[in-house]
Amino acid sequence: MGLEDAVLIRTSNTLKYEDNYVLMLDRRRFPEQELWQRYSGYEEVATAIEDMVIQGAGSVAFAACFGLALAARRYSSQGDGEFEASITKAAERLKATRPTGEYLVPLVEKMRRLALKARAEGMDPAQAIVAETEQLMEKDDELTRKCGYHAAYLIAGGDGILTHCYPGGALLYMLDYAMRQGKQVKVYCSETRPYLQGARLTAASVQKLGIPTTIVTDNMGALLMAQGKIQKFVTACDRVTMDGHIANKVGTYQYAICANYHRIPFIVLGYDGPQTNTLRAKDIEIEERNPEEVLYCRGVRTGAPGVDGYYPAFDITPPTLIGAIVTDRGIFSPLEIGRVYADRFSG
Amino acid sequence: MGLEDAVLIRTSNTLKYEDNYVLMLDRRRFPEQELWQRYSGYEEVATAIEDMVIQGAGSVAFAACFGLALAARRYSSQGDGEFEASITKAAERLKATRPTGEYLVPLVEKMRRLALKARAEGMDPAQAIVAETEQLMEKDDELTRKCGYHAAYLIAGGDGILTHCYPGGALLYMLDYAMRQGKQVKVYCSETRPYLQGARLTAASVQKLGIPTTIVTDNMGALLMAQGKIQKFVTACDRVTMDGHIANKVGTYQYAICANYHRIPFIVLGYDGPQTNTLRAKDIEIEERNPEEVLYCRGVRTGAPGVDGYYPAFDITPPTLIGAIVTDRGIFSPLEIGRVYADRFSG
Repeated sequence: MGLEDAVLIRTSNTLKYEDNYVLMLDRRRFPEQELWQRYSGYEEVATAIEDMVIQGAGSVAFAACFGLALAARRYSSQGDGEFEASITKAAERLKATRPTGEYLVPLVEKMRRLALKARAEGMDPAQAIVAETEQLMEKDDELTRKCGYHAAYLIAGGDGILTHCYPGGALLYMLDYAMRQGKQVKVYCSETRPYLQGARLTAASVQKLGIPTTIVTDNMGALLMAQGKIQKFVTACDRVTMDGHIANKVGTYQYAICANYHRIPFIVLGYDGPQTNTLRAKDIEIEERNPEEVLYCRGVRTGAPGVDGYYPAFDITPPTLIGAIVTDRGIFSPLEIGRVYADRFSG
Repeated sequence: MGLEDAVLIRTSNTLKYEDNYVLMLDRRRFPEQELWQRYSGYEEVATAIEDMVIQGAGSVAFAACFGLALAARRYSSQGDGEFEASITKAAERLKATRPTGEYLVPLVEKMRRLALKARAEGMDPAQAIVAETEQLMEKDDELTRKCGYHAAYLIAGGDGILTHCYPGGALLYMLDYAMRQGKQVKVYCSETRPYLQGARLTAASVQKLGIPTTIVTDNMGALLMAQGKIQKFVTACDRVTMDGHIANKVGTYQYAICANYHRIPFIVLGYDGPQTNTLRAKDIEIEERNPEEVLYCRGVRTGAPGVDGYYPAFDITPPTLIGAIVTDRGIFSPLEIGRVYADRFSG
């Protein structure tokens, strides 16, 4: 029991570049199975991202970078102009896999430029991408830990914590720090239809920390609050805007409204904070996924035959419903975070 | 396409007493299959009610009455004292199947007394129960129709309507009347985990009326409201209190809070209104079902191994979140309904 048993805590435990393959721990099968998928081309990596083999804004971006390394390797014998065209096409394909997360587009673009630069300097572009991505993954683990450290300050002994979807390693670090500080907590994981990230990824990970863990369906959050079982609502986010909105897994907004109604604080694990070019909520594209996905559960049909589904995968929560956004740099009001990052942490 | 194609609209389409058997259309398989289950004893009927072969406060109560008829028949050769003890024991078993619904306990008690009276008058107790139950089912269809008729008055052309769980025939009558009045609407059915009544029973029934029907997961309601897709939130209820609270499928409260936040009216289909002996919310027992049920979906495991579940099956919505409670007698504010029923409709 402990952090080291929570496999998902670090992206590097679930995503690797080895022997010119990208390896991904299949999150659709986890935790029942620890099944590794192996990809040799960027198109396969792109499809795996779209098909939810991996999830989470950070992990998805790193997987796409490794996918670009596969492309850089495949096209290495091409002439300079052709190589640039090929790697750019691969980058565009990988950037287009999931529109909402904060890191995917800038990170893939960064790696595309790095590949061209490496090649111009006579170095191996694929190797350059892999080395840089692995370094960023290490930095990401460190900032994740810091985000969890700061968030633990907001947790009190005896708290019941409602989470939604899989908030990533910062939730696990937060819980671990809270426990080390002598704060006993309980965690309620909403199952998070249709992909059940809460019932599977979060529940399995929190349980590994030795914390009492309960799965509830997505319609029970407000009742738990009314019953006095919840003292904090905590999620991650796929994007933070400069004006203090967050985008996260659909359902976050619904719980945020209910938490506000019950005077329960909503704590957002914001990792490395807002991107200075995402100013307002309308700058975020909300991914609409295949409607068929809401008509099935783990491959079993759930919807009545012939009826339509609708699947917006994310929603946006306004700053008025958020108590604090916690990043690797500390705890911020949603009203100040954009200005603080623009003034103090820019560049 | 039309009301006659919506099988679930009338309890009598899904529940029968025939040749000394109770027959139930298995709602766990509907709409994919129209599978009838057949029961010869009251214990089997009680188990079927507990196992969700039938659902809905009215239908459950009628099924229990038919179950009592099976008991009355089985014990008909007993002496008077023994018969009374046996039928009372069966009634207690049937009353204990589901605690939250409004009709189960009073209706089964009524039938128990009727059986004793019939026997004292030299008539067949089972036959008396069956005849009375069938008559009540007819009356129930008529009051359901009237409730739908009044509710249609509150629907406007162009409305997007969010529903939760299966609101019973009143929803279908309401939609049918609205259409006849030239009001085009769209219906969004929340899937209603863990039993998926919205995705299966409601979606299949509404679709039969020729109305555009969309299934969403239980975490999407607030987003649909923010997107401007929802103008009315409409559910049934399993119980109305004299002070204007309602108990309904868990998740109703969560949507009611979100509807209030978005200034969207919540319309409750209240069928025959409050019971004068249910004064306050605390007089309602909220059924807590087997926690394992939230860890599965249609028999497939959804929860991480070894993690607990929690399954409160109903929640309570206060009058401050309710726009109107509609019954067979008209449209009522939740603030007036108890007094109106006590003053005008008592006895």
